Amino acid sequence: MRQSGRRPDELRQVQIVTDFVKHPEGSVLISVGDTKVICNASIEDRVPPFMRGEGKGWITAEYAMLPRATEQRTIRESTKGKISGRTMEIQRLIGRALRAVVDLDQLGERTIWIDCDVIQADGGTRTAAITGSFIAIVLALSKMVEKGELKELPVTRFLAATSVGIVREHGAILDLDYAEDSIAEVDMNIVMTSDGQFVELQGTGEEATFSKEQLFKLLELAESGIRQLFEFQKEALGDLAEKIGENFEEKKEEQS
Amino acid sequence: MRQSGRRPDELRQVQIVTDFVKHPEGSVLISVGDTKVICNASIEDRVPPFMRGEGKGWITAEYAMLPRATEQRTIRESTKGKISGRTMEIQRLIGRALRAVVDLDQLGERTIWIDCDVIQADGGTRTAAITGSFIAIVLALSKMVEKGELKELPVTRFLAATSVGIVREHGAILDLDYAEDSIAEVDMNIVMTSDGQFVELQGTGEEATFSKEQLFKLLELAESGIRQLFEFQKEALGDLAEKIGENFEEKKEEQS
Amino acid sequence: MRQSGRRPDELRQVQIVTDFVKHPEGSVLISVGDTKVICNASIEDRVPPFMRGEGKGWITAEYAMLPRATEQRTIRESTKGKISGRTMEIQRLIGRALRAVVDLDQLGERTIWIDCDVIQADGGTRTAAITGSFIAIVLALSKMVEKGELKELPVTRFLAATSVGIVREHGAILDLDYAEDSIAEVDMNIVMTSDGQFVELQGTGEEATFSKEQLFKLLELAESGIRQLFEFQKEALGDLAEKIGENFEEKKEEQS
Amino acid sequence: MRQSGRRPDELRQVQIVTDFVKHPEGSVLISVGDTKVICNASIEDRVPPFMRGEGKGWITAEYAMLPRATEQRTIRESTKGKISGRTMEIQRLIGRALRAVVDLDQLGERTIWIDCDVIQADGGTRTAAITGSFIAIVLALSKMVEKGELKELPVTRFLAATSVGIVREHGAILDLDYAEDSIAEVDMNIVMTSDGQFVELQGTGEEATFSKEQLFKLLELAESGIRQLFEFQKEALGDLAEKIGENFEEKKEEQS
Amino acid sequence: MRQSGRRPDELRQVQIVTDFVKHPEGSVLISVGDTKVICNASIEDRVPPFMRGEGKGWITAEYAMLPRATEQRTIRESTKGKISGRTMEIQRLIGRALRAVVDLDQLGERTIWIDCDVIQADGGTRTAAITGSFIAIVLALSKMVEKGELKELPVTRFLAATSVGIVREHGAILDLDYAEDSIAEVDMNIVMTSDGQFVELQGTGEEATFSKEQLFKLLELAESGIRQLFEFQKEALGDLAEKIGENFEEKKEEQS
Amino acid sequence: MRQSGRRPDELRQVQIVTDFVKHPEGSVLISVGDTKVICNASIEDRVPPFMRGEGKGWITAEYAMLPRATEQRTIRESTKGKISGRTMEIQRLIGRALRAVVDLDQLGERTIWIDCDVIQADGGTRTAAITGSFIAIVLALSKMVEKGELKELPVTRFLAATSVGIVREHGAILDLDYAEDSIAEVDMNIVMTSDGQFVELQGTGEEATFSKEQLFKLLELAESGIRQLFEFQKEALGDLAEKIGENFEEKKEEQS
Repeated sequence: MRQSGRRPDELRQVQIVTDFVKHPEGSVLISVGDTKVICNASIEDRVPPFMRGEGKGWITAEYAMLPRATEQRTIRESTKGKISGRTMEIQRLIGRALRAVVDLDQLGERTIWIDCDVIQADGGTRTAAITGSFIAIVLALSKMVEKGELKELPVTRFLAATSVGIVREHGAILDLDYAEDSIAEVDMNIVMTSDGQFVELQGTGEEATFSKEQLFKLLELAESGIRQLFEFQKEALGDLAEKIGENFEEKKEEQS
Repeated sequence: MRQSGRRPDELRQVQIVTDFVKHPEGSVLISVGDTKVICNASIEDRVPPFMRGEGKGWITAEYAMLPRATEQRTIRESTKGKISGRTMEIQRLIGRALRAVVDLDQLGERTIWIDCDVIQADGGTRTAAITGSFIAIVLALSKMVEKGELKELPVTRFLAATSVGIVREHGAILDLDYAEDSIAEVDMNIVMTSDGQFVELQGTGEEATFSKEQLFKLLELAESGIRQLFEFQKEALGDLAEKIGENFEEKKEEQS
Repeated sequence: MRQSGRRPDELRQVQIVTDFVKHPEGSVLISVGDTKVICNASIEDRVPPFMRGEGKGWITAEYAMLPRATEQRTIRESTKGKISGRTMEIQRLIGRALRAVVDLDQLGERTIWIDCDVIQADGGTRTAAITGSFIAIVLALSKMVEKGELKELPVTRFLAATSVGIVREHGAILDLDYAEDSIAEVDMNIVMTSDGQFVELQGTGEEATFSKEQLFKLLELAESGIRQLFEFQKEALGDLAEKIGENFEEKKEEQS
Repeated sequence: MRQSGRRPDELRQVQIVTDFVKHPEGSVLISVGDTKVICNASIEDRVPPFMRGEGKGWITAEYAMLPRATEQRTIRESTKGKISGRTMEIQRLIGRALRAVVDLDQLGERTIWIDCDVIQADGGTRTAAITGSFIAIVLALSKMVEKGELKELPVTRFLAATSVGIVREHGAILDLDYAEDSIAEVDMNIVMTSDGQFVELQGTGEEATFSKEQLFKLLELAESGIRQLFEFQKEALGDLAEKIGENFEEKKEEQS
Repeated sequence: MRQSGRRPDELRQVQIVTDFVKHPEGSVLISVGDTKVICNASIEDRVPPFMRGEGKGWITAEYAMLPRATEQRTIRESTKGKISGRTMEIQRLIGRALRAVVDLDQLGERTIWIDCDVIQADGGTRTAAITGSFIAIVLALSKMVEKGELKELPVTRFLAATSVGIVREHGAILDLDYAEDSIAEVDMNIVMTSDGQFVELQGTGEEATFSKEQLFKLLELAESGIRQLFEFQKEALGDLAEKIGENFEEKKEEQS
Repeated sequence: MRQSGRRPDELRQVQIVTDFVKHPEGSVLISVGDTKVICNASIEDRVPPFMRGEGKGWITAEYAMLPRATEQRTIRESTKGKISGRTMEIQRLIGRALRAVVDLDQLGERTIWIDCDVIQADGGTRTAAITGSFIAIVLALSKMVEKGELKELPVTRFLAATSVGIVREHGAILDLDYAEDSIAEVDMNIVMTSDGQFVELQGTGEEATFSKEQLFKLLELAESGIRQLFEFQKEALGDLAEKIGENFEEKKEEQS
């Protein structure tokens, strides 16, 4: 039994509030245990300079933590005047992950800005941010479909993320909270789609290493957790959930 | 009648959630109409270098807006790498205002960090931040009293703030929302204490000017609004409200 | 009697040198007691991006102090690589104040850059900067009228500023020098026009508060000081003084 | 056959020059095909503030590319005044990877600075940097052993890295050059130790996804490549190769 | 005849106002033609970290131009957030030049800060800054001698600087103004001491070159100009001029 | 005899490797003793904004040192977020020097970017950078002539640079290494062309001064060293050496 009373393969409690803030096209507050992230999606009618004229869309993500999202107050990155390596790494990860399930050609020359602001942190903020942002994007794009700006929802599959890790006393465990993360010897973030494919896989031995067998065990755990997250996403999206990936299978066949 | 249906001297709906986030010593979510600000107070056991050795405390504030707190997405100040003049002005205002009602000698060599993060903006974010931060500070200091780190609550009076302004079609109005603020000819932020004193008064003619008579009218409106805000603060603080200013009158007499 | 021998309602000695530096369109050295500020006005034939196409002008101000304007050498903001909150606040104040008395529609799509560089500081630098910059702007705009680039002087009224404050031993006093400012409990900067209107009013209790009665006393003192400053401005401007606000009254009537 | 004439499981030509530059404690020029990286290791007799007093060492890495390491000139990060997200991600990866095979307790309160400067880039710069830096560290630490500053070489195992990926026309391939990397649908960087353990595993579907089967194929390819890289490292290190991991097995047993 | 009516070997009019600003230990306004520079010297009772414990002093210089010192307004370096290469080069030059004539051992562990602020520019600002700063330093150090903080004036010789150049139509000329500087093919700044020695010599062919004969002609011109500048310095310093280099000759003999 | 065994007028060993890196249009590794600099020349088909429309080319240089080019590791300027004064001074010097021997009109609206990266430093890095960059530029421009993008090589003369200095025990010496540079009383960098003209001359008394006689001796030494450097450049360029300055003499006559 973990300190929280969870089984090794048990997710924390997940809660998803849609339309949390009023201005953004898509807005979500996701809670995974005590980790709480506001995920807002904004649509901009142009793409960054390096993509202009290609007729294709783009997704870019920004991530930040309120100073007291953490136990100890952290200095604001705006006050320091620069963004840390950790923040940059997370922003790049979130953007890449979401681009894998949005049909950027269908989106056209538009940018989706994802803003993930952690208001309370207890481990797994980056994976919660991905899971929540997926919903915010679907909400934002649905409004465009409603207004006739897009013919159909350009979202090919569900996408969610979780962390797994190896902790000396428990072995492989799912969905680490901050206390577990701090003592984990191996730490892995995994992003998957609803058709069982990997999008991102980042495993790190923290001054430690891991074997192929351990890797396989971790992948299995992650997959089971992510399948549960898809169910929370479906519930939060209601009817919209059915629009996802509508024509994905035919398109995929056409392409191959 | 204003567009919102409010009378000229009517506040927007005020809601105060205490203990909104779990880590900070004091945490408040304040809503004033559609303006929503998270106000967190953190206690640090030292003061900035320029105050060391004086045996006195300090209060410093930081203010930020989530990119989609606003109708149009604004660029993060961490991404720009610098803090705007507007942000600095607001941070300095919040800090100064709160220092007027906390007995810094009694606080001892500690810093109270106030973090005001606007998650939804509709005008009056700086005054909502002051009104909410006052409660966050009382919550944080009460915990210190409970733990015996302070003998009594070093808060001398209630403190709240609101905005007033002159709009061509309505004349002087109380608690401007964003739409009203955009067309106001005169805009004034006022911070007052529960014994009817001014702490800050910032009146600006936006490419316009105002007469002494208009000023008096605005001051009167502000005072009536701030009196109502004290009631919301008292309700949010419950029993703690009675501890405020407990020994203030005697001390004041001693000083004079 | 104040340390300087001044009465509570007495201004320091004021001296205004026009055409102090040769390149700017308008250049003034203003001395208020030992405070000395070079105020230069430059005209640029375009407006910032956010105002393009509106047919309207803009005024923007920058403020700086030489490192040894002060008793202790201060670090250059260029060396630190960023501008302090205090500087930003002052720059924004100067710009806003001057925009209130220049008819920006008549100015057309031009920017007036105001550069206020304090070469010697003894309190009241921001108010001296406003009083001096008003003259620099009039000088710069007059040259445009002379050259036929503007039909008439787009300046509606005189504008000047001073500080007032409450010091324990003297009560309310006018035009604080640095020593007085350091011990003032209340500090107020007031910007007024020659028709007796307020443009800016910034009152701050420095870890203190002030009553409505004290506020009224301060406003009265400020007004008497500013009226004297208008006389110094008129003298410095000579014949140009008569061109100010020439058609202001008729226009005001048309508008209402 | 790949454009370069290589088989899918074929590494590029590897060349390792030791003592490439004269000042650093350890200096290596590694070439993997046309990718050339200077890896320098410097020993500093203190650790960063957050580690002081723990009696443990630290390894930190910096990575940069000369502007014309690439086909198109890239702007220097010193000129831009900030480090890109990509650079930060790579620096963090290199540091983490190397920390897994150096016994930081045995190192004592010292920092090893790794500087990886890419002088010519053709894909796989970060994995070449890791493979080369491992040698630079061994060279630097050996000198400390020689001088008696360390009793034995605190390096537990060999460490090397390579990239694998999936390219539409070739399927899974080993050690991608820049042209292959640009068209790869899946891109994975893998860091392994000589006892067959993973240290880092970063797999990314570039706007694509990958199945568990594809993952397994990629891991196999990577392992075969990394085994060859260990041979090149051994050759470059000569007699020093035998000192690596001397007491690792016993220590490991003691620990468990 | 030059456009200004000057002969090729004629300096511009030089004017030196001492004690220009009240706070600095030494303060000078130097005018060389239309170039006007405020030179302030401040004494700080410590040296930069790299010099601590050596018992020796240091001189460091900062240089800036007011935005409208120039015909076209230039952007403030504080606004840009960084100092230009030109500014850095000038600051380093001024500091180096002055260190050559101050006995840093006699100065003890103190820093002299030189602030050169150009309020009006018409060519030759860096050489005017050196000539003026020399006087500011002597004034500041004299006060220390008066107060008994130094036994004697640690200034070994007079120091002044000028520019010379080659302009197609006039050949070699002395003390170039801005218009001449803009068309000069060769531009040289020369710093000399009153015993006829060079301290700095910076000659640049601007997309041009110069022969040894031309160099000799320029050196001769510069020397004659600098000799005249020494006379202006002596006049400005009055009695203090005689204290300069008092024991320099004996010391020099002792050293050799 | 100098510590290195060199005579006062003896250059260090010079080695020039052309085409050192594969991507740049011109690439050179120059070694002068233990100083090693990679000099890359890149051609860009546009000029900086301030030169557009003039039909003329531009040359700009960037200079950096690898952190362990030096005995003690130096912090990367990208990490510090700003470029030092020393670096800026060197970059400006290299750019100016090279512009003197390239016919910028003939080059047309193109920029040549020179990147000088010091991989090992032992004094004289800036002069080695100039001598090496000259060759890199010739290589880059020759390719343009080959491709028909330029009619003839727009290089008017050879250009090389060296340092000379005065060291107490040896007097005037040529081509100072780091140890000599550290104790030199006078330090001079000289850039000359193959027709015996000066381009740059930067002489500095380091807390010392120098006489006209010493200057003449230094110039003579420098000239003899630079003549030898021209021979190394000719050898490195092979047949290309003959194309340099082909039509320079006629053009010069036309111009005069």
